[in-house]
Order: sequence, then structure tokens, then C-alpha cells
Amino acid sequence: MAKAVTIALDAMGGDHGPGVVVPAALQALERHDRLRVALVGDADTLRGEMTRSGHGEHPRVFVVHASQTIGMDESPSQALRLKKDSSMRVAVNMVKDGDADAAVSAGNTGALMATARYVLKTLPGIDRPAICTTMPSIGGFSRMLDLGANVDCSAEHLFQFGVMGAVLAEALDGVDRPRVGLLNIGEEEIKGNDQVKQAAQILNESRLNYVGYVEGDDIFKGTADIIVCDGFVGNVALKTSEGVAHIIAHYMSEEFRRNPLTKLAGLVALPVLRRFRQRIDPRQFNGASLLGLRGIVLKSHGSADTTAFAHAVETAMMEVDAAVPALIDERLDQLLSERQES
Amino acid sequence: MAKAVTIALDAMGGDHGPGVVVPAALQALERHDRLRVALVGDADTLRGEMTRSGHGEHPRVFVVHASQTIGMDESPSQALRLKKDSSMRVAVNMVKDGDADAAVSAGNTGALMATARYVLKTLPGIDRPAICTTMPSIGGFSRMLDLGANVDCSAEHLFQFGVMGAVLAEALDGVDRPRVGLLNIGEEEIKGNDQVKQAAQILNESRLNYVGYVEGDDIFKGTADIIVCDGFVGNVALKTSEGVAHIIAHYMSEEFRRNPLTKLAGLVALPVLRRFRQRIDPRQFNGASLLGLRGIVLKSHGSADTTAFAHAVETAMMEVDAAVPALIDERLDQLLSERQES
Repeated sequence: MAKAVTIALDAMGGDHGPGVVVPAALQALERHDRLRVALVGDADTLRGEMTRSGHGEHPRVFVVHASQTIGMDESPSQALRLKKDSSMRVAVNMVKDGDADAAVSAGNTGALMATARYVLKTLPGIDRPAICTTMPSIGGFSRMLDLGANVDCSAEHLFQFGVMGAVLAEALDGVDRPRVGLLNIGEEEIKGNDQVKQAAQILNESRLNYVGYVEGDDIFKGTADIIVCDGFVGNVALKTSEGVAHIIAHYMSEEFRRNPLTKLAGLVALPVLRRFRQRIDPRQFNGASLLGLRGIVLKSHGSADTTAFAHAVETAMMEVDAAVPALIDERLDQLLSERQES
Repeated sequence: MAKAVTIALDAMGGDHGPGVVVPAALQALERHDRLRVALVGDADTLRGEMTRSGHGEHPRVFVVHASQTIGMDESPSQALRLKKDSSMRVAVNMVKDGDADAAVSAGNTGALMATARYVLKTLPGIDRPAICTTMPSIGGFSRMLDLGANVDCSAEHLFQFGVMGAVLAEALDGVDRPRVGLLNIGEEEIKGNDQVKQAAQILNESRLNYVGYVEGDDIFKGTADIIVCDGFVGNVALKTSEGVAHIIAHYMSEEFRRNPLTKLAGLVALPVLRRFRQRIDPRQFNGASLLGLRGIVLKSHGSADTTAFAHAVETAMMEVDAAVPALIDERLDQLLSERQES
């Protein structure tokens, strides 16, 4: 049996706070006997939430008090400076101190990245941590990074993202030699901007399985296992995807509600539509990895529900089992020394 | 009645060439008595296509011979240098010479932009032309630019895109004081990159109806009438949208084909699904405007079918009626002189 894992949860973060984090923790605990959970936040609130969930005490849950919370709109630097006893900060501190194997937060992304970077530090050879998420694709899924931690990226940063993404795909998805694609556009004579062109050269000369440029629609085609881009582009692509999925669902719902006849058709088609919805359910992809740090931190979507947050906790467990930070360190070291030799 | 309009069609461009362009032209001609069409390309082929369509002669169609065609993968500079008698070049030349009011091509985007820019030149005060397309949104649609003509944009370029987009929304959509949004991400402390931040300031100080930063999902929410971004980001957002729509359609079709029961449900739901498909049909948005030039040029999607290409021709007619380049010139002049006065 795999070894015990302790995950520290920022129980106050996200749109729903303890109301989602506590039941999500209980859901994950029920599924995994080897999981222990630290609920970090206002102790009274958390104990109240445990009681409400019918678990006044749980042998694998311990509450860690933190007196502050970080607002969703608070600036990262302010959070870092003024909220040293925030639930987010205390959860990340636990990872640093070895009291937890990983931290999960649905709080403010900028604050989480700044906190994780400040507390845990980056791995040697990694200039900037990146945020990596899973995107559905025909035949499976791909992983995309960065998603907003870094708006301007050099070629070397993009290369490092490629390394980190490849390690994640190998470790979590069991992909052998994951295909790394560089997000670009097809319209310019000599494609893309300077950083992307230089990154292509570095990736091409490395021993990563670099498959070349990919375009926005390739994210969903399964052309690559890893999609590398700067944080500005990645964030726009991610939000755009969410927007398209939302408007399509909106239109479909409107059409089925148009009149009694279409409602009847909707009723007949309901089981199919439900299966379809399950397949595009973003909850199954919840849990973005903050990569490049000396520790494991996952970001849950702010609006995640219990199922979604529990999925993020399980992804954190997988990263712990695989020791992702050590793997990234090792792989980067290897690739950089190969580069020097050649 | 509105005045006669002559549109030059690059009849050899796109994935389907004359097989789509000729019937699309005939479709538009049937709808609009005041439309005249120049079919530009290999004269024999085009006359053959006219005959095949049952119109050996059409009083409002004239064929203009061009001996060359530009491949979809040809480099813009090569096309410009070596293909001086291409169907695309000759069509754009007709606009410059006043023989046509606008040109429409489904050919190579990069080559079309380079040709249009070289032949027609940009308007005074416009540094770079941009490509602008329509995106569906809840309650209507928005227009987004740039979509790939310019990978790196200064703040001033982004401001110019805002002006051009606003003019288009006023002229074609009849929107009073169109809301201009600047595409950005929500994750960074002080949002976005330097260019975007500076562009926000310029837009804010102008008399455009600037509504602030928007994110990827806002494109489809109707938060703004005009979405301004650099060509790299815009192209990724556009292609990503296409990719999401495609994978959703793919999943849905798979679910309805799963077994006889789901097929039956699909049959019952067919009229609803058909209406739904019509609403997200990209053909109704076909025809991207090349803005900032001293003439009207539209880019049709390379894979456009007859309906889609005819739509691009009709959009070109609307731009001719509104005299879009003159309006952009006028508005930019006005905004820049206001800026100097203040």
C-alpha cells in the first residue's frame, strides 16, 4: 500500500470557504484510508463545520488555527506583507516545515503564487514557477502551462515550463516521452514572437519530445500532451475556453426551453445530455499545479464545489506519491548538463 | 435605393477556390440587385465554373484574368515578390485603381495582409492594419481585433485597434458609443503587461467609450462590443474558441450515436439540436475585416463554404456602404487632435 499522505487545506479560501472545503476533505478521506487532512483556518468555524457534517471528531482530520483570511481581490504583495497568519500562508508554511506533504487552496491565485514562492522558494534552475492545468482533448486530455503566473516570459522560461509539464505528464498520467508543443499562431511569415521562436530552438535541441508549434485549436485535438505558453496567452486561452463552453451550454438550454415541444424533446434526450455534460464537466479537471517550487501546492478553482475540490486534493496526493518537485529538479539538471556537454 | 457596389473576388483562394467562390457570388448577386462582381483568377476555369453553375453569362459578373495563384502555405514576402499576377494581388489592385469598391479573399491570411498593406497603404495615423472578426456573445456578438496581423503591439497600436473597432461597430452594427474593452488577465498584482497597462491609460483618456479590462470569458458574455488585444493573443483566443466548439460538438455527437436508444433520443431532439447548431454556426460570422487600410479588404475563412463566403461578400458591401476607411480616418483624426489639445 502507498504511504500515508498529509494534505494541508486552506479551509477559508475560495468563494465558499469551509462550506466546501470541509465536506470535500471528508469525501477524499472516505476514499483514501492513507490520507490525513489538516484543515487550516478559524478553528471555531472549522469545528462547527465538522460537527455540521456529522464528524465532530475525525481520526484523520486535525484543525490548525489561522486568524486571518485573504480576500479574493487582495493584492498578492499586501497578502504577503500583512497576512502572515492567513489560512493560506499557514497551510503553505506546513509544507515548508514538513508538517504536510502538500497544500491545496481555492483562494486568490496571485496571493497563493506569491506566498508559495516566498515561503517554499523555487527549485534550482527554475527562474519562475508556473501554473499548470488539465484541458480536455479528443481522446483524453492535455496539460497547459503557464496560466497567469508570468505575463512576460523569456525563451528559457518557456523551456523550463516544457520540462515541468513533461515531468507532470510522466508522473501523473504515466505518459512515456510526453509530446511537448509550443503555443503559437499560424499567420505570421516567420511565426510567432521572438521569445517563442527562440524557445522552439531550445526545445528542439533538448531531449524533450518536442513536437513543434501548436495553435489554439490544437489544445483540444490531442496534438500534444503538454502545451507551453506564457501566462498571458495561457490565461486568455483558459478563460476563453470557459467562456465558449458557457455560451454553448446557455444556447442549448435556451433552445430546449423554447416551448412545450422542445421541453419534451429535452426530457427524452435528458440521459444523453447528462452524459454529455459529465464529459465536459470542468470539476473533473479541477486542481491546477503550481510547478517549479520546493514543495507541492495546488490551486483549486475559486468556485469549486465539493466534488471539484476533492478532485484537487486527490491530484495533490498523486503529486506527493510521485514526488514531483524532486523529479522536476532531476530532469532539469539532466537536460541542462546535456546542453552544456553538446 | 443604395448605390451600386462592385466587389472583386479572389476566385482562386481558399481551400475550395472557384468551386465555392463562384456559387457564393451568384448567391449574393441574387440577393442584391445593386451588386456587381469581378471574379479574379484563371479565366478559363472561371468561365467553366460559371457554365457549370448554369450562368454562362451573367449581366453583373465579369471575369478578370490572373495567371497566378498563391498557395495557402506560401510566405507573404514571397507572394508579394513573385506573384504579381496572382488572383489575390489583382483583386486588391482593382480596389486601389477604383475598379472595385472592395476585395474579398479566402486565401493565405499573411499574404493577403501583406498584399493589401503594400498595395493600398495604411491610413494616416495608423501604424499597422489589424484583422477584426465577429464573435458570438450572449445577447448578440462582439468584435475582436487584432487576430494575427501583429504579434507584438505597442500601447499606441492597441489604442488604434480600439478606434478602428469602434468605428466598425458603429458603422456596421449601428451601435451608439460602442463599449471598448481591453483583453487582459486577472491574475497579476498590477494586471497585465506593460503595453496593456499603457494602452488602458490612453484609452481611458480618450473619448472612446472604454469600459476597462475584460478577460477571455468576457468575449462571449457581451461585456464589451469591441475586444482589443494583440494579434498573438487574439489569434490564440480565436483558435481556442474554434477548438472548444469542435470538441463539444464531437462529444455531443458521440453521445447521441452511442446506441439505438440514444439515437432515437437524438432523432426526437433533432429540430432543437438543429436550431442550436444554427445559432453557433460560424458561417454567419464569416468575413474578417482588414482595417486601417486605404481601401476595403475582407478575409474569408479558408474552408468557407458557399453560404459563408456569400456572407463575407455581404459584409464587404456593408463596409462599402458605410465607407469604413473614411470613417476610421475621420475618427482617428478627431481623437488625436483632442489628445493634443488636452
